Amino acid sequence: MPIGANTRVVLAARPQGLPKPSDFRVETVGLPEPADGELLLQILYLSLDPYMRGRMDAAKSYAKPVEIDGVIEGGTVARVVRSRLDGFADGDVVLSHSGWQSFAISDGTGLRKLDPEAAPITTALGVLGMPGFTAYAGLLTIGRPKPGETVVVAAASGAVGSVVGQIARIKGARAVGIAGGPNKCAFVRDELGFDAVVDHRAKDFEAQLKAACPNGIDVYFENVGGHVWDAVFPLLNEFARVPVCGLIAQYNELPASGVDRLPGVMRDVLRRSLTIRGFIQREFVEQRPAFYEAMAGWIASRKVRYREDIVDGLHNAPDAFLGLLQGRNFGKLIVRVSR
Amino acid sequence: MPIGANTRVVLAARPQGLPKPSDFRVETVGLPEPADGELLLQILYLSLDPYMRGRMDAAKSYAKPVEIDGVIEGGTVARVVRSRLDGFADGDVVLSHSGWQSFAISDGTGLRKLDPEAAPITTALGVLGMPGFTAYAGLLTIGRPKPGETVVVAAASGAVGSVVGQIARIKGARAVGIAGGPNKCAFVRDELGFDAVVDHRAKDFEAQLKAACPNGIDVYFENVGGHVWDAVFPLLNEFARVPVCGLIAQYNELPASGVDRLPGVMRDVLRRSLTIRGFIQREFVEQRPAFYEAMAGWIASRKVRYREDIVDGLHNAPDAFLGLLQGRNFGKLIVRVSR
Repeated sequence: MPIGANTRVVLAARPQGLPKPSDFRVETVGLPEPADGELLLQILYLSLDPYMRGRMDAAKSYAKPVEIDGVIEGGTVARVVRSRLDGFADGDVVLSHSGWQSFAISDGTGLRKLDPEAAPITTALGVLGMPGFTAYAGLLTIGRPKPGETVVVAAASGAVGSVVGQIARIKGARAVGIAGGPNKCAFVRDELGFDAVVDHRAKDFEAQLKAACPNGIDVYFENVGGHVWDAVFPLLNEFARVPVCGLIAQYNELPASGVDRLPGVMRDVLRRSLTIRGFIQREFVEQRPAFYEAMAGWIASRKVRYREDIVDGLHNAPDAFLGLLQGRNFGKLIVRVSR
Repeated sequence: MPIGANTRVVLAARPQGLPKPSDFRVETVGLPEPADGELLLQILYLSLDPYMRGRMDAAKSYAKPVEIDGVIEGGTVARVVRSRLDGFADGDVVLSHSGWQSFAISDGTGLRKLDPEAAPITTALGVLGMPGFTAYAGLLTIGRPKPGETVVVAAASGAVGSVVGQIARIKGARAVGIAGGPNKCAFVRDELGFDAVVDHRAKDFEAQLKAACPNGIDVYFENVGGHVWDAVFPLLNEFARVPVCGLIAQYNELPASGVDRLPGVMRDVLRRSLTIRGFIQREFVEQRPAFYEAMAGWIASRKVRYREDIVDGLHNAPDAFLGLLQGRNFGKLIVRVSR
């Protein structure tokens, strides 16, 4: 028997190319009572991340796709509003993976309690959460920047890219960011302290990137693909490492005809002994405790800074997500679901 | 003042696509006396290897191209016929990098003395030399096969591929070879002991490969590219490793139009957490002593077998090399330069 109303956003149709509003549906359903051994969670914040676009396709991937009419998945910060599970009390704040909805029932699996005194709870979705850990594990385990090397990252003002560049600097490397537009570029250079930043919308983007990397590129943290890849690839040094974290520029693309670039890329992989390595952060789960400790210290000492872009209201999540895919957000994109 | 005649093969023109006989020129020049601190070497055997095709292009690579009118480079086994260098005596047999010629002057740099009693001296160009070490270092350092995993290698009857599969089996993995034609396939299965072999010339090659890899592919040792890559790629498992050692099928190709396969490959690199890693064996030089010891043991215990394809006469080197690029050789291709 429902005890209230749950608002949720479901996948109405699988997007063809860039998602459109009709691919989403906001609906209200009854909210069940938690059974013994369960919790009722009220979602406070929902994280919006590029990987969600992949979940909307039916194609085989590292995770199952979201079902049609299913709630879209996503990381969330939630408050326990009714606990019938030992170890959790009403009022506890937890990190959960409850998806695009305002309430959820949980049996406790995968929950992590948050201490609101230690850090703002939204950081559990960003710099102290999955995106920050993605940057940390991918850069340090696959990129392995050495002091003096050049690390390039695109979407440099975003949740992952901003952390990649700042950790690169902590490790003594030179951080070159790529961002879209003068405001983001200024933020990356002046607030995040990258050594250089290049606007990928500039007409002479390729020349600017080359000038910003006079010693070539040793690590390219790939999270965009598209024309940024084309500009970066010729600059990769011998033994360069390319952690492939995302390809946001091509998530919405259909197969292209024209020149087949694959043979040329493979030839250069061979000639320059390049490493191209796709990854997902959960592969490196054993590094999470070290990450939490290191990142908390870097935030406290202001060696790592972060920016959040908070959108109000779950019904605005679809539009905010479309903006994310087009680079409209500025910082880690989060939806405030309730207060 | 010349003390005799040196026959050599020089690069007459840079090949466009597949080399043709007129790209080579056989010529005879005078042979100088070795100076104090030098050796005169008589070349006994010349190794022919696919990498040489890359040296014939002017394009930037990991090594300088051969100059027009320059002697084509290559590994050689030679006899010291006049030593004016301490530590070398007339009659010593050495591994050198003297190129496509019948004599050479050396100051001793990079020479390695061979013990003709320990192993046939030609093996220093194959299973106990650069190709064997390439297989060893690439497979074990980048491929890292675990027991029970599936390792696929093309050109499986060749100098590198044959060793890759046999070491994979020694490490407890399942070795699947790809070779061209029934004779090579029978050799790979019956003589080398691979678990399965597939003929890439078969009409249903892709289906046969899939059937030979019921658990997918964990390591693909890439040394051919082309249509073999296309058949292998969909079968790569999550976390598969692809050491890229060579791309013989595309050394002679010009840029292709049609569908751009790069975005799809990158998408799967991400979705399946694939590793693609180009390499050259000299990067792993510190592993050579361990390689010599391990391989000598494997040969002695017949865990590793090898086959040589020996062509007589330096003037036949260009044609033999063209055959190598087309898969006409059967085993490690070596030119007997003198007896």
